Amino acid sequence: MSDQPLQYLSENREQLLEKLNNFLSIPSVSTDSVHKQDINEAANFLETYLNDIGFDNVAQQDTGGHPLIYAEYNQAGPEAPTVLFYGHYDVQPVDPIDQWASDPFKPEIRDGRLYARGASDDKGQVFMHLAVFEAYMKTEGKLPLNVKVCIEGEEEIGSENLYDVLHDKKQQFDADFAVISDSGMVAQNQPTILYGLKGFTGIEINVSGPDHDLHSGMYGGAVRNPIMALNHILTSMKNENEVVTVDGFYDGVEPLSEEERELIQNVQGEDYAEATGATETASEKGYSAKEHTMARPTFEINGMYGGYQGEGTKTIIPSDATAKITCRLVPGQDPERIQELLEKHIHNVTPSGVTVDVKKEKLSAKAYKVEPDHPLIKKAAESYTKAFGKDTVYVRMGGSIPVVEWIEAIYQMPIVLLGFGTPEDRLHSPNESFLLDSFDKGMETLVYYWSNVNGL
Amino acid sequence: MSDQPLQYLSENREQLLEKLNNFLSIPSVSTDSVHKQDINEAANFLETYLNDIGFDNVAQQDTGGHPLIYAEYNQAGPEAPTVLFYGHYDVQPVDPIDQWASDPFKPEIRDGRLYARGASDDKGQVFMHLAVFEAYMKTEGKLPLNVKVCIEGEEEIGSENLYDVLHDKKQQFDADFAVISDSGMVAQNQPTILYGLKGFTGIEINVSGPDHDLHSGMYGGAVRNPIMALNHILTSMKNENEVVTVDGFYDGVEPLSEEERELIQNVQGEDYAEATGATETASEKGYSAKEHTMARPTFEINGMYGGYQGEGTKTIIPSDATAKITCRLVPGQDPERIQELLEKHIHNVTPSGVTVDVKKEKLSAKAYKVEPDHPLIKKAAESYTKAFGKDTVYVRMGGSIPVVEWIEAIYQMPIVLLGFGTPEDRLHSPNESFLLDSFDKGMETLVYYWSNVNGL
Repeated sequence: MSDQPLQYLSENREQLLEKLNNFLSIPSVSTDSVHKQDINEAANFLETYLNDIGFDNVAQQDTGGHPLIYAEYNQAGPEAPTVLFYGHYDVQPVDPIDQWASDPFKPEIRDGRLYARGASDDKGQVFMHLAVFEAYMKTEGKLPLNVKVCIEGEEEIGSENLYDVLHDKKQQFDADFAVISDSGMVAQNQPTILYGLKGFTGIEINVSGPDHDLHSGMYGGAVRNPIMALNHILTSMKNENEVVTVDGFYDGVEPLSEEERELIQNVQGEDYAEATGATETASEKGYSAKEHTMARPTFEINGMYGGYQGEGTKTIIPSDATAKITCRLVPGQDPERIQELLEKHIHNVTPSGVTVDVKKEKLSAKAYKVEPDHPLIKKAAESYTKAFGKDTVYVRMGGSIPVVEWIEAIYQMPIVLLGFGTPEDRLHSPNESFLLDSFDKGMETLVYYWSNVNGL
Repeated sequence: MSDQPLQYLSENREQLLEKLNNFLSIPSVSTDSVHKQDINEAANFLETYLNDIGFDNVAQQDTGGHPLIYAEYNQAGPEAPTVLFYGHYDVQPVDPIDQWASDPFKPEIRDGRLYARGASDDKGQVFMHLAVFEAYMKTEGKLPLNVKVCIEGEEEIGSENLYDVLHDKKQQFDADFAVISDSGMVAQNQPTILYGLKGFTGIEINVSGPDHDLHSGMYGGAVRNPIMALNHILTSMKNENEVVTVDGFYDGVEPLSEEERELIQNVQGEDYAEATGATETASEKGYSAKEHTMARPTFEINGMYGGYQGEGTKTIIPSDATAKITCRLVPGQDPERIQELLEKHIHNVTPSGVTVDVKKEKLSAKAYKVEPDHPLIKKAAESYTKAFGKDTVYVRMGGSIPVVEWIEAIYQMPIVLLGFGTPEDRLHSPNESFLLDSFDKGMETLVYYWSNVNGL
C-alpha cells in the first residue's frame, strides 16, 4: 500500500479536528424531543460530508423516527469485498450539566483529550471512518473496497426504528462483512478486539397507592406507602451479594470456563474503583468485578423517583413511585423471557394496598459472541497491532449494541468490532472525552485494515 | 349572650367569604423561597384586618424568617381571662399542580365546598376566628375576653423560628389558655376535640457511590448501585407488616389500653380506603388502621429520588440517591433519640461500596396529650355540640402541631384544639377544600365559646 492516505491524515490533522468539532458542537440528543432540530442538523452534516468525499447515493432515509444516513461506494469493482460500516450520530443527554468542566457542545482539548458529548460515543469514532475514506479519495482517488455506510440517529434510545429498516431493505444493506467502531479498548494504547457483547433488556415499574398525595399525619398508619412498597419489590430482585434473586434469571447461562476466567484475568483492565470513584468494587458473589462486568448478567436500577423532591420537608405519603431498570444479558438468556420473569416476580411480591404496572422496554437484544480466529478478525488485530505497536487482546464486554445482534440475525455476516475509546472516556457521563492519541492511531489502524482485507 | 354577633355573621356572610377569598388568593407557600413576596402579602393582609377589627399593638414581628403577626386586645379588663390564639398563614406547595381541578389560588365553590390551597390548613380556620372577633366588635363594641393573637408564617416548614420567639418573649405571649384551630373533625358535622397529637421528627438519607453517573454496560457488575443500596437500607427499617424494625424505636411507648382501643373503635371515623383511593388499608401488625393512625408511631418515606427520571431510557448507574423520611411519634418517644436510633441503624446496615450521609430535621416535637375533662375543654365541647347539634367526640390524631408541645412546655397553659376541618379536605394535596357548613357552624361554635369561658 502507499503511505499517501496516512500522510494526508497527518498533514490535514488540524482541519480534520476542526471539522470534527463542528460535528460535536451539534447537540444531537435523541432521547429528548426538544433536540429534533439538532438531530436534523447532525444528519445534514453527514450527508454533506459523504457527498464531499465522493460517495454515491447519499441519502437521508426516513425511518419513522430520526433519519438514517445511507451512502455507498461501488467503484472498487465486483471482485473487491463490500463492507457495511455502521455508526450513530445521536448522543446521550448531558444532565447533570453542572458537573461538566466545559460546555458539552463546545469541544475543548485538555491534556491530549477532546472533551465533548459524543466525542467517544459515537460521533468521534464515526468521524474517524469518514476522515479515512476522505484520505483515500483525496490521495488515491478511490477506496480499496466497496462500502455501504449506515449511520443512524437513534442508538441512544434503543435504535428505535433501525431493526425494521435492516429487515425491510436486506438488499440495500447486504455486504460481505460489517465494521462497527462504537466500543473501546481495555486500556489506553491497548489494541482490543471485542469478541463478545452483552444483550440488553429493560422494564419500568410503577407502583400506585392512594389516588392523591396524603397528609402523613392524617393517614400515616392507614395505607401502604408506594415508595416503601417499591423498595420491598426491588430488594427482592437483587440481594446484597449482587446476585439476582428472580426465579430463572440465570437459566441457560453457560458457566464461565477456567480458560475464559484466565483470559479475563490476563486483560490489563482498568482499576474500577479508581475509574468510578466508588470506595470499593462490588460484584456478584463468586465472581470478580472484571468477570461480572465482562461475562455475567447484570441488573441495574437506572432511576427511581416518587414523592417530594423539593426544598425542605413535605410530610406526605406519595400516590405513586417509579423505577427504571435495565439488565445486561449473556449468551443463553432471551431478553423477552427475562422481561417475563421479572414481571412475574414483581406481581408475586407486590404487597397489599398498592397496584403495580410493569412497562416492558420495546427494544431488546440478545448477547453476541464471534469466532476470535476468523480471518477478518485476525486481520483487524494485525492492523491494530501495527498502528499501536502492541499486541491485540480479545475481550468480551458488558456493553450492548443491539444492531450487532440484528445484523448477525438478519444477514449472518461476520461483524468486526473495532473500538478506539478508552476507559477514561466517561461515556454517558459528564465530561465525556476522547483521547487524541486514539484518534490518530485509530485512523492509522483503519488505513492498514482497508488496504489488507481484499481477498479475505 | 346576645345573638347580635351570630346575626352579623349570617348577614355579612357574602362579604366575609369574599374577604376570605382574597386571603386564599395569595400563594403564601413557605417552603419555597420564590414565594417570599407572597408571604409578605399574606402578612400584610392580616395586619390590616386586625387593625380594622380594632386590635391593639398589631405588628409584624421579625422572627429571622417569615414574619409573625402579633396583636392583642386587653379591654375586657383584668378580671376576664386572656386567650392566646395561634394559627398560621403559610400553606403547603401545590404540586402536582396538574391534579388540581381549579387554580389552587383562585378560590372556587363547588358542591358546598370552598376549593383553594389553605382553605382548611390553616388560612380558612384562621379567618373564621378573625371574622368572629370582627362580629363581636361590630355589634357589641368589645370582645368577651382578652386576646393575644399569634399567627405565624412557617408552620408548614416546621415553625422554623417560632420556638425561639415563644421562648424569648414569654411575657408577651403568656395567657390563661390557648386555642388553636389547625385540625379537623373525624367526620362531617361531628364535633371533635383533639386530646392527643403525635410528635414529629425526620431525617434525610443520601447514599453516594460512584463520583459520576456510570455507563451501566461498562461498569454494571463492578460497583454498588446507590439506589439499590438505599432500597436495602430502607427495607431494613420497616417490614411488610408495617412494623418499624429499627432497634429501640418502640421503647417507652405506652401500650394501647383496652379503654382507649374501645374509644377509638367508637369514633365514627372515615373509610380510609375510600378517602385515600387505596385498594385496601395497611397498618401495623396487631393494630387496626384507625389505631395505628391515631395512637401508634409511624415511619413514612415522603420522597425518594436518584438517577434518570426523563423521557425514555438512560442506561446509567447513578452516582447517588436520596430519601426523605418523617416519623410521627407518640407519648414516651423522644424525637432526638429517635433520630439517633435511625442514624445508628442506617450506618449499621449500609452496604459496602457506598457512603451514607444522614441529615437530621432540625425541628422536632414530642407528642401531646391533654386531660379531656378540663373545664375549658368541656366548655369547648358544649359550644361545639350546641352549634353542630351533635355530641362531641374526644380523639387522638396522627398529625403533629409542634407549637402545641412548645406552648405546653414553655407556658404550662391548657391548650384547646378546636378543629373544624373534615376528612375530605385533602390537606397538603391537590384540590384542598373546606366545607362551608363547617365554616358557618365553626364560627357559631366560637361565638358560643368566647361568651362562656369567662370565670372558668
